[in-house]
Amino acid sequence: MKDLPITMRAAVLTRAREVSVEEVPVPQMETSDVLVRIASVGLCGSDVHFYEEGRVGDLVVDKPLILGHEASGTIVAVGDDVDEVRVGQRVAIEPQRPCRQCTYCLTGRYNLCERMQFFSAPPIDGAFAEYLAVPADFAYPIDDGISDDAAALIEPLSVAIAAVRKANVVPGSSLLVAGAGPIGILVAQAARAFGATEIVVFDPLEARRIAAARYGATRTVDPLAEQLDEKSMDAFIDASGVAAAVQAGLRALRPSGRCILVGMGSATIALDVFLVQSRELSVSGLFRYVDTWPTAIALVASGAVELDSLVTERFPLEGVAHAAERNGDAHVMKFVIEPWKVDAP
Amino acid sequence: MKDLPITMRAAVLTRAREVSVEEVPVPQMETSDVLVRIASVGLCGSDVHFYEEGRVGDLVVDKPLILGHEASGTIVAVGDDVDEVRVGQRVAIEPQRPCRQCTYCLTGRYNLCERMQFFSAPPIDGAFAEYLAVPADFAYPIDDGISDDAAALIEPLSVAIAAVRKANVVPGSSLLVAGAGPIGILVAQAARAFGATEIVVFDPLEARRIAAARYGATRTVDPLAEQLDEKSMDAFIDASGVAAAVQAGLRALRPSGRCILVGMGSATIALDVFLVQSRELSVSGLFRYVDTWPTAIALVASGAVELDSLVTERFPLEGVAHAAERNGDAHVMKFVIEPWKVDAP
Amino acid sequence: MKDLPITMRAAVLTRAREVSVEEVPVPQMETSDVLVRIASVGLCGSDVHFYEEGRVGDLVVDKPLILGHEASGTIVAVGDDVDEVRVGQRVAIEPQRPCRQCTYCLTGRYNLCERMQFFSAPPIDGAFAEYLAVPADFAYPIDDGISDDAAALIEPLSVAIAAVRKANVVPGSSLLVAGAGPIGILVAQAARAFGATEIVVFDPLEARRIAAARYGATRTVDPLAEQLDEKSMDAFIDASGVAAAVQAGLRALRPSGRCILVGMGSATIALDVFLVQSRELSVSGLFRYVDTWPTAIALVASGAVELDSLVTERFPLEGVAHAAERNGDAHVMKFVIEPWKVDAP
Amino acid sequence: MKDLPITMRAAVLTRAREVSVEEVPVPQMETSDVLVRIASVGLCGSDVHFYEEGRVGDLVVDKPLILGHEASGTIVAVGDDVDEVRVGQRVAIEPQRPCRQCTYCLTGRYNLCERMQFFSAPPIDGAFAEYLAVPADFAYPIDDGISDDAAALIEPLSVAIAAVRKANVVPGSSLLVAGAGPIGILVAQAARAFGATEIVVFDPLEARRIAAARYGATRTVDPLAEQLDEKSMDAFIDASGVAAAVQAGLRALRPSGRCILVGMGSATIALDVFLVQSRELSVSGLFRYVDTWPTAIALVASGAVELDSLVTERFPLEGVAHAAERNGDAHVMKFVIEPWKVDAP
Repeated sequence: MKDLPITMRAAVLTRAREVSVEEVPVPQMETSDVLVRIASVGLCGSDVHFYEEGRVGDLVVDKPLILGHEASGTIVAVGDDVDEVRVGQRVAIEPQRPCRQCTYCLTGRYNLCERMQFFSAPPIDGAFAEYLAVPADFAYPIDDGISDDAAALIEPLSVAIAAVRKANVVPGSSLLVAGAGPIGILVAQAARAFGATEIVVFDPLEARRIAAARYGATRTVDPLAEQLDEKSMDAFIDASGVAAAVQAGLRALRPSGRCILVGMGSATIALDVFLVQSRELSVSGLFRYVDTWPTAIALVASGAVELDSLVTERFPLEGVAHAAERNGDAHVMKFVIEPWKVDAP
Repeated sequence: MKDLPITMRAAVLTRAREVSVEEVPVPQMETSDVLVRIASVGLCGSDVHFYEEGRVGDLVVDKPLILGHEASGTIVAVGDDVDEVRVGQRVAIEPQRPCRQCTYCLTGRYNLCERMQFFSAPPIDGAFAEYLAVPADFAYPIDDGISDDAAALIEPLSVAIAAVRKANVVPGSSLLVAGAGPIGILVAQAARAFGATEIVVFDPLEARRIAAARYGATRTVDPLAEQLDEKSMDAFIDASGVAAAVQAGLRALRPSGRCILVGMGSATIALDVFLVQSRELSVSGLFRYVDTWPTAIALVASGAVELDSLVTERFPLEGVAHAAERNGDAHVMKFVIEPWKVDAP
Repeated sequence: MKDLPITMRAAVLTRAREVSVEEVPVPQMETSDVLVRIASVGLCGSDVHFYEEGRVGDLVVDKPLILGHEASGTIVAVGDDVDEVRVGQRVAIEPQRPCRQCTYCLTGRYNLCERMQFFSAPPIDGAFAEYLAVPADFAYPIDDGISDDAAALIEPLSVAIAAVRKANVVPGSSLLVAGAGPIGILVAQAARAFGATEIVVFDPLEARRIAAARYGATRTVDPLAEQLDEKSMDAFIDASGVAAAVQAGLRALRPSGRCILVGMGSATIALDVFLVQSRELSVSGLFRYVDTWPTAIALVASGAVELDSLVTERFPLEGVAHAAERNGDAHVMKFVIEPWKVDAP
Repeated sequence: MKDLPITMRAAVLTRAREVSVEEVPVPQMETSDVLVRIASVGLCGSDVHFYEEGRVGDLVVDKPLILGHEASGTIVAVGDDVDEVRVGQRVAIEPQRPCRQCTYCLTGRYNLCERMQFFSAPPIDGAFAEYLAVPADFAYPIDDGISDDAAALIEPLSVAIAAVRKANVVPGSSLLVAGAGPIGILVAQAARAFGATEIVVFDPLEARRIAAARYGATRTVDPLAEQLDEKSMDAFIDASGVAAAVQAGLRALRPSGRCILVGMGSATIALDVFLVQSRELSVSGLFRYVDTWPTAIALVASGAVELDSLVTERFPLEGVAHAAERNGDAHVMKFVIEPWKVDAP
């Protein structure tokens, strides 16, 4: 570790819509951490939300913050309790640091840990930087066959896998997906890998419907032109955050159907009580993931899920603000930040 | 069966707020049915709703209907495929006739059978009558230690058990209940029998809070005077149907908490999406019950649940309208109809 | 139905190793049945066992019996309660007639119905005949893309799906399979369709290992030449019936691993108590299937599972005994009986 | 912590049947540990097994070892990462130190952690000593209403709760228990608290059957005099370790019944394959517990489970060998060691 630098370059959000590349200290490792030289970081919708608003819900950016949590890289140093053999490993990062002691951590629901430190959520810095220190067991080794970008995008794939698990998608299931952005696309891919034989994706943007059809949707629907079939689907995953989409999705569910709310957008949704009761529907929120990296890596390694082609464009650290500004464009699927890339003038 | 009468007396709802006692044909049995001489029938909130409005949701009373589905009695005749030994048995009635052939019936969710015939839901007549023909396996024998009234009230207890199961109440659980009417009280009792060690019931009516405390609540709360603790409960069962109560209940749930919607009232509830997502809550509707009678009977037989004292007053068939009019009074817990009782002038 | 014959040809087992083709009455339909003109019937190991021994466990062939329960065909007549539109449908048959009234039937475990009538188990005749009457809802329509043979083999595929479900195989799982006969091969295929990414099959016969590799095994092992890795697999399905194979499989399981016993053979297995306790293993028996036809049909229709190539040879009714005698040959995967095939001299 | 002694008294097992009370170092705390002054420690059958044989399965006492893992006491010091407010708390100890990083720990199955350090299993010292250092979150505060002995016996109660959970005991269940020693008695109590309404305990010793009847059994059976009813019970928990008892228990299970192996004794059990398959039984091992202390404490606090009266006799550290020698006597239920008790001559 003698060769590690003391400082590094990072894209720092100082307030809404202000990001500057600064020289900051390299993160300190805990004894059970590894230090990862970051190779690739996806730009997430929540990063964009922090960039635009300076907050997400209760979480306020009240001091400078490094965003980014969809990350991969190479281990360059290990804490005292970690085997040195890990130095040099390429890894996909699960960007969570749970307390490991509360009842949620002990019972397999560490995503709900109330002392969770989630990278890129204030006040915990994220991965738009040259280095990140993460718990050793949350840095998952990957094979050479998985690219840096794909390894970074294991994170949004993990969201999709968590959603598909919670929706109880099994071989032969029918699944409805609202929204064909990156999460919707990954949900469709994950559902296919879980054996769903009917995957219907609805989105008002034609470009996104075309993408959905390419990535596993067996049918796509333009909600502006067509009604969804009533009472026809086993499960529904909302990746749109639009109240009307959720309501349409609920009506499309069969009795005992499950709805999983993943998308962020509408603050409230008017829930039709009679519908939920008479069909015995369930509506559940999703909050990140537990134990998804091994499954996600296996699905990418086997080819069941394809991630590389989701990358629309790559940016250096200096491009974070620019990428965030353009993230909502219809043709954008996933922007990736490469912290070590030199910004060509 | 030669001694069975051809006709019987029944309380018939002809339109909203019009009930008359009429002589109608005794129901025909199917070959796998039994004919039950009705002893006691609880008056349910949905009966009252049909009485007041002539409809519940999509279900419209467009021809004369016999209400009542919380019923007990004695088997007086059996269909050709049923063992004659059953004649004379006292039974609690599960008032459902599922098709037994659809995917819901075959997979243990017959409550969701789309060809379900539910007694007292139009156009299927119910139990405010001297006789009812029901599937033999849905007429559960009861011991002498269980009264006719208690056997009738196995039905609302079944709703409570179904709710408590769906809420995943286990020994040591904490449960919040909104509404201390009959269902709320039975939920509290069922939760206690399932091992819940913290049972909080909130209701604005003092008389009902006192009843709740008597039947298993470890604490009662007047929502007009006191806030519920945030993030403190494992599960929440709404037996009020009031949107504000549901919203308060959701805020009181711990991460991964479950909310079960049982009460009918507000047509829609504004669901706080961030709350549901960030705590990974689930909100589920309940629609009747599956396989609850054996459990309910065991709990009543063992004394874990007490039903008789819930009966506020008994009426003959002629009293159905009068009982329905008074059902909302604060001191009323459960009215019971006794079809064979003679109406004293 | 006026054109239906009164009698039909059937292969009748009169005692061990004696089968004769006889003219017998066409089965009577119940009102909720359909009558199927049988197209193709697989020969199952249990058929062979009845042929060889005249019994399987408690089930004794003490009067003439028609074997065969892996069957497909075309509906030629319907009972009074069944829609006539079904006449002409090609169907895969689930060969069970549950009572639909016991606690097992009502709770989604009809395979355990104690009044089950299973076709081909004494005294219920099976499908080595020109016609079979089955419950309408247990005759599942199939598309033209599924052959008669494939439709018949949905039955053993259903066993495999039931096993894979019970073993809790999910995307990313590792599964060990003992025995690469038809069931082992179908288990491997089903596991692949359920997302297992590591499927190890062991069998001492090389021809069977080669077949396993063709149908989904990611690795095959000759147990005579190689040890299985200890503590390495999530789940283990025994399709061999050999005690030593089960014991080896248990040692290969990870902590909390599941073992499903499907194969029949050894009457008892010496269970290593310390192994089962210290790794908290579970060992479960499998008894047929519940709600597997829809999943199986979906997997065959989507191409996730391939059945046709499993057929080794076809025989007319006159060939049942001959086929049974040869069923144990190493190269035999699945024999099929075609009841309408004329026996060429 | 300045007042803590450097050494303490402990009962040290040096080899089979040799225990001496020695002055040994007080255990070092990790930063997230607490140091507990031990009040009461139950003598477990596994302690006795180590005492008699110097080993249990793979676990060999090859250097001096302090036994004892059913322990309670008072926190006298805390590690650097633990709130000082905890000093003075009375606690029940969960005697496990999982790694918190492996896949089992992260997914709520830390009992299966392969780097587990279990107190009193070689080479990890246990609680037959004046002090023990344990993870802060595994030292559960208890109310004054729970005695030191009861707090110690939360450990065997936890085994019972884990067994009853795994057996899926719910309100209305029937449960068969083999063996009416301490674990069998606690299983009966736990099952009653979980709502089982039929609890049958069988044991050849009359004194133990009488105890079982006192603690929750609804019926007791002398297996030497009476046969168990076939196919009558929902679940079966073996707390005897006797192969013949397990076999009898399996025959008593209903279709889909669950058998949980808790008792240690017979090295192997001859499993009847046809029985397990035709009734679709499951046989599972139990290995300690996960997340049981909160439930156990709640059940003891509410009076649903009673522990104090299980204590047969108390001993000082000098009495460990004597207690171990006498542990098998028929009238002995639970011996307790009090490390601070002075050995009266």
